[in-house]
Amino acid sequence: MELVTPHIPPQPAAPPSRLNNARVLKVELGARSYPIRIGKGLAANEAAFPEAQGRALRVITDSNVAPVYLAPLLAALHIGDDQVFVLPAGETQKTWDSAGQVLDWLLASRLSRDGCLIALGGGVVGDLAGFCAAIYQRGIDFIQVPTTLLAQVDSSVGGKTGVNHARGKNLIGAFHQPLSVIADTSSLSTLPRRELLAGLAEVIKYGMLADSLLFEWLEANLDRILALESNALAEIIERCCAIKARIVGLDERETGSGPRALLNLGHTFGHAIETHTGYTQWLHGEAVAAGLCLAADLSARHGWITEAVAARCITLIQRAGLPTQPPPGMTAADFRDLMGLDKKVQNGKLRLILMRGLGDAIISSDFDASLLDSVLHDACSAAG
Amino acid sequence: MELVTPHIPPQPAAPPSRLNNARVLKVELGARSYPIRIGKGLAANEAAFPEAQGRALRVITDSNVAPVYLAPLLAALHIGDDQVFVLPAGETQKTWDSAGQVLDWLLASRLSRDGCLIALGGGVVGDLAGFCAAIYQRGIDFIQVPTTLLAQVDSSVGGKTGVNHARGKNLIGAFHQPLSVIADTSSLSTLPRRELLAGLAEVIKYGMLADSLLFEWLEANLDRILALESNALAEIIERCCAIKARIVGLDERETGSGPRALLNLGHTFGHAIETHTGYTQWLHGEAVAAGLCLAADLSARHGWITEAVAARCITLIQRAGLPTQPPPGMTAADFRDLMGLDKKVQNGKLRLILMRGLGDAIISSDFDASLLDSVLHDACSAAG
Repeated sequence: MELVTPHIPPQPAAPPSRLNNARVLKVELGARSYPIRIGKGLAANEAAFPEAQGRALRVITDSNVAPVYLAPLLAALHIGDDQVFVLPAGETQKTWDSAGQVLDWLLASRLSRDGCLIALGGGVVGDLAGFCAAIYQRGIDFIQVPTTLLAQVDSSVGGKTGVNHARGKNLIGAFHQPLSVIADTSSLSTLPRRELLAGLAEVIKYGMLADSLLFEWLEANLDRILALESNALAEIIERCCAIKARIVGLDERETGSGPRALLNLGHTFGHAIETHTGYTQWLHGEAVAAGLCLAADLSARHGWITEAVAARCITLIQRAGLPTQPPPGMTAADFRDLMGLDKKVQNGKLRLILMRGLGDAIISSDFDASLLDSVLHDACSAAG
Repeated sequence: MELVTPHIPPQPAAPPSRLNNARVLKVELGARSYPIRIGKGLAANEAAFPEAQGRALRVITDSNVAPVYLAPLLAALHIGDDQVFVLPAGETQKTWDSAGQVLDWLLASRLSRDGCLIALGGGVVGDLAGFCAAIYQRGIDFIQVPTTLLAQVDSSVGGKTGVNHARGKNLIGAFHQPLSVIADTSSLSTLPRRELLAGLAEVIKYGMLADSLLFEWLEANLDRILALESNALAEIIERCCAIKARIVGLDERETGSGPRALLNLGHTFGHAIETHTGYTQWLHGEAVAAGLCLAADLSARHGWITEAVAARCITLIQRAGLPTQPPPGMTAADFRDLMGLDKKVQNGKLRLILMRGLGDAIISSDFDASLLDSVLHDACSAAG
């Protein structure tokens, strides 16, 4: 069902030359394996979408992305704009009610079970559209076309879909793998600067948790990224997706003991910040950036990494123009309360992702609670 | 009822002799395989729930079932009634909004990802609770404790979960297999007569589509069922579950060409009837009963079964006190409109489950549309 289009005459494969400029990775998940295609202009190139050919298609996007990228995509896919649902932009749209509206529209548009959704946008659109694909008529195919750096290196790969809840982020959702992921680097040229930087937080995260060479490459080449140099962007997207694809291939559904949880480095703190600020003031990547600093600090206080390594992490995050402290006014008690409900709580014991080296993260509930308290207290005091 | 903490120390495994009176089947789905336990008194027997031991548990049930079966289940599982969500009874509760309320409650109760839901009730409770388990924190475990004949022979087995939509039944949902299914035959003794008969419609369906011996057994033993003879009930539950387990094992996610769709014999017509009557006037099994008669009639008009076989099907359904015709006032045009959105539409061509013998069903889009029209017209005219 997920990967097969049973009743469509096979199309001739697109000549490989037409995608010569694309880098292609594969997420290995048996019957649910899929390609990630990375390159300039792919979202406007029919040849990047062989999985969509001959299918009934619907596009979900948002009000920021639609004016810029929708028309070229529709032209590439030969579909009309009556097959598009445009959400208002923003994380506040990633709700149960919005999902209900998308499902109402899909049903009104009479998309059948063998149809295919296309998510064109950032993480909010991808997570929400993916969740709708997961539960529309018990699951239909979908294709991710991420238009933000954050979505290209993280949220569009791996099959996590879902919506937020007043009690926390992504508390309702499903694992549902896409048919393919099409990461068009040219979409980063119109991305607001603040969102580009927020995506960089996840890139730095990959370096911190799994790839010291990537981390050092970022230290040396940060300016090329900030100048939007095309090859540099493609390089980090490919490198991050390769890490994520490998980890997701080992642990598709994030079992308690599996490596996928490592990708949440900084996220338990970050989710608490996002919940505390109501999802409206901080971008996800900004909250993760501050969370990465807290995780590095806590790791250093345990002696698991040196203070010099923690300082390099915090410095790189600062150079990228990202926050290194919690929001002003947030207290250690706020963190404790909000982290109590986090999905990483198992049998009442909080588990955190921490570092034991540059490019080497672990899942641990074996940390010193008083050190956690002092990290939170110091960070919140410094933030004011 | 005493209040007990959710973190119960693991109990020693129950000696097998304590479940000596249970019939046990297995649904073979690799890592998602699970047992179906059938017997008298199982829902009040701790030994029937080895999968629940030592877990944080929450129970979803409804206002009809709770007064009769909740207390014994809670006692068997050593949990308090503050861990229970009671839905108002009825198919009208199987909605997106109700699912949202259950998810709100689960989050408020701070159930973590390693917790387990128990669905105590009929198909509505099982489908809704299973859907919530499928999407709560991207999927948690659940156990089905079906209390109606329909749920015991059909909806609790196979992992289909979901909610209805104004545009049709089960249009939003997920495949999510339970950890186990506990079918307690004693719960049928308090089941309203009308619901028992509605469940019998699905039993007759199994005979018509896959098991002519079951069909003949029903013709000979219908009175024992209607008299609620315990062994006869266990016999049909076991036999139907064995058929369903075999088909689900071959085709977990109901691919277009797989055998699982055969279980929908009568259901395309039945869903149209339920949608037309707003889910309030006809029970699911009653709508299926009328749908089975339409499917048998259409099969006979094609010459795929004899008129004598169709007549035996319709007679058995009638003897079971079930409707053999659509609701008065419903027209052939109503059927055509409502069947157009049915999930069984592929690439614009309606596919129906039809019979080519007693105990032998096929999936076909190769039927004569004018014969379908005449069947619908004749049945609707006869119903008035």
